[in-house]
Amino acid sequence: MTVMQAQSLGADDKSIPISPLRWQESGDTLCVEMLDQRLLPRQELWLRYSDAQGVAEAIRTMVIRGAPAIGIAAAMGLALHARAWQPDGSQWLASFDQAATLLAGTRPTAVNLFWAIERMRAVALRLGSTPSREQAFLAMRAEALNILAEDVAMNRAIGEHGAAMLPAGARILTHCNAGALATGGYGTALGVIRACHERSKRDGTAPISVWVDETRPYLQGARLTAWELMQEGINATLISDNMAAFFMGRGEVDAVIIGADRIAANGDVANKIGSYGLAVLAAYHKLPFYVAAPSSTLDPKTASAAQIPIEERSAAELTQVGGIELAPEGISVRHPAFDLTPASLITAIVTEKGVFFPPYSFVSAS
Amino acid sequence: MTVMQAQSLGADDKSIPISPLRWQESGDTLCVEMLDQRLLPRQELWLRYSDAQGVAEAIRTMVIRGAPAIGIAAAMGLALHARAWQPDGSQWLASFDQAATLLAGTRPTAVNLFWAIERMRAVALRLGSTPSREQAFLAMRAEALNILAEDVAMNRAIGEHGAAMLPAGARILTHCNAGALATGGYGTALGVIRACHERSKRDGTAPISVWVDETRPYLQGARLTAWELMQEGINATLISDNMAAFFMGRGEVDAVIIGADRIAANGDVANKIGSYGLAVLAAYHKLPFYVAAPSSTLDPKTASAAQIPIEERSAAELTQVGGIELAPEGISVRHPAFDLTPASLITAIVTEKGVFFPPYSFVSAS
Repeated sequence: MTVMQAQSLGADDKSIPISPLRWQESGDTLCVEMLDQRLLPRQELWLRYSDAQGVAEAIRTMVIRGAPAIGIAAAMGLALHARAWQPDGSQWLASFDQAATLLAGTRPTAVNLFWAIERMRAVALRLGSTPSREQAFLAMRAEALNILAEDVAMNRAIGEHGAAMLPAGARILTHCNAGALATGGYGTALGVIRACHERSKRDGTAPISVWVDETRPYLQGARLTAWELMQEGINATLISDNMAAFFMGRGEVDAVIIGADRIAANGDVANKIGSYGLAVLAAYHKLPFYVAAPSSTLDPKTASAAQIPIEERSAAELTQVGGIELAPEGISVRHPAFDLTPASLITAIVTEKGVFFPPYSFVSAS
Repeated sequence: MTVMQAQSLGADDKSIPISPLRWQESGDTLCVEMLDQRLLPRQELWLRYSDAQGVAEAIRTMVIRGAPAIGIAAAMGLALHARAWQPDGSQWLASFDQAATLLAGTRPTAVNLFWAIERMRAVALRLGSTPSREQAFLAMRAEALNILAEDVAMNRAIGEHGAAMLPAGARILTHCNAGALATGGYGTALGVIRACHERSKRDGTAPISVWVDETRPYLQGARLTAWELMQEGINATLISDNMAAFFMGRGEVDAVIIGADRIAANGDVANKIGSYGLAVLAAYHKLPFYVAAPSSTLDPKTASAAQIPIEERSAAELTQVGGIELAPEGISVRHPAFDLTPASLITAIVTEKGVFFPPYSFVSAS
């Protein structure tokens, strides 16, 4: 029974055709399966992780990415950790915190990771100092699967709220992948696009079309967003990031919509590198610039963008593609993986609770 | 003698350490050698072309690129054509025009190509209807080598004028490759950077440093500009195009300088895709945005950007890198190779004749 319930929350749920991870429990098998996003779209390979350490490594090496998805993965990692707990005199919470620290250290910018770990810790605390392994596991597993299920539900609500702002036939530009693959399923920015697509099919109105920024250096747009949209038959056109201004200038873009890795209390947004430039370009061309994210992305403890750490990733992710060196050996490289968009450039922030307009104040939203 | 003189105008000239092409004449050998820029920086391969058709194919397939460089290549192609001319009753000018049409049809946006062909045609006209092959060849070769030599001299003057506007230690962002490889040698935007570098070495002042946009999809920045700057020991840091706004926002960029493929009479500029977006970002961050180009890039016959054709290149140049597919098969792609920056966003245009400020009027410059 447990197995079926668990599986139904992952990729086997027909209403979530694409999901980046699934909880697997069957006989002696207990693991998290993740679709290796580094290989998409060329190969669909599912990798299995049976402990928190493996999950941490998967997050660090970008097998799975996307702010909500890495939060869910971390929660599942903590559930796996509970299954391995030995109540032999050691303290449960100390054991939990060891795994939590490992998972929290993987990526610094997205807040959903820390949010999910906090939620799991609240459950861990309620278990007292020496729960049985079964008690700990059942509670941790239930909360991890709740986080997954809630994320998908939040994305559907985000989709509804966002779609209500976009006219039929809208030409939307998006950056990176804020899609099913970045979440438990359905997606945030792509959730809005999916909701527009479903609406046009239902109502027979003009279909939405999407400009997909390839999103250098990691190419999440070209590899993941293009793949997701093609799977669902949504009109998508791939461009390099530096073409966005060209099509905006020609009047061929109606709005920009992106996801978020962290939203500060004042509405400043950390998101994939390139988002800030798009926000400036959208403002210049008088286009709405929307951010779509679940409330787990809101960080009331961060007053503004200035407090958000920006992860610098390796030079190789920029200078190599598929093992091929693009640049001369030894060239200096900078690779901030995220940037910060001030609230003043954001037309609206769409969460599952509704659409927020400036001035933003997410202090009370926690 | 001729051989030595011809060679001295190409890559063997010590004062031009990098040049994308050289005229070769020795014994039975008569050809244009071009550095295959598609293979840089991994391989330095020189290809030989002995007729106008081969040169046209080299331009079309981007063995050589860069507005001034393709003009020089076309001129050399016409000189090769003159060497093959058979004065057997056919008309010289008709024969010339046949080759000129072939070369003019290779790439539509850069005006230097048409400018160089026009210069060659003016010489061809002066030869009358049936010059001897030797007469035709000597005149055509002399003009082609003049165009090359003048281009290098213009670039040095552009460098001087541009450097005068930039303080010691300036942090310059550039896009694409407007360097030695895009010209006869020395470069336009990179000519200004080279002149700044030479000045700081001479005066012992703070060295210039360069942010190099990788320049998707063809990666001229990562492959060519990074390579040129490393060869000369100029501080260079490679970034993806979508990081420019991030570093501008952090106050780490002092100015943007790019080349041009065509400058309309009103100062509107066609240049590599991504230039327009950079101009908007520079204006937003209150940074000077400079365009550096020889007067062969001015097109007084084009009133404004609206009349400049934008070349669309293949989807494969965007979806493949080194033969590796980045995007899902069958995804729609747009690939405008150039964009248009309105004069209103350009702080100054630097030519060999000096620095021009708005309002621009290049009608009388022809």
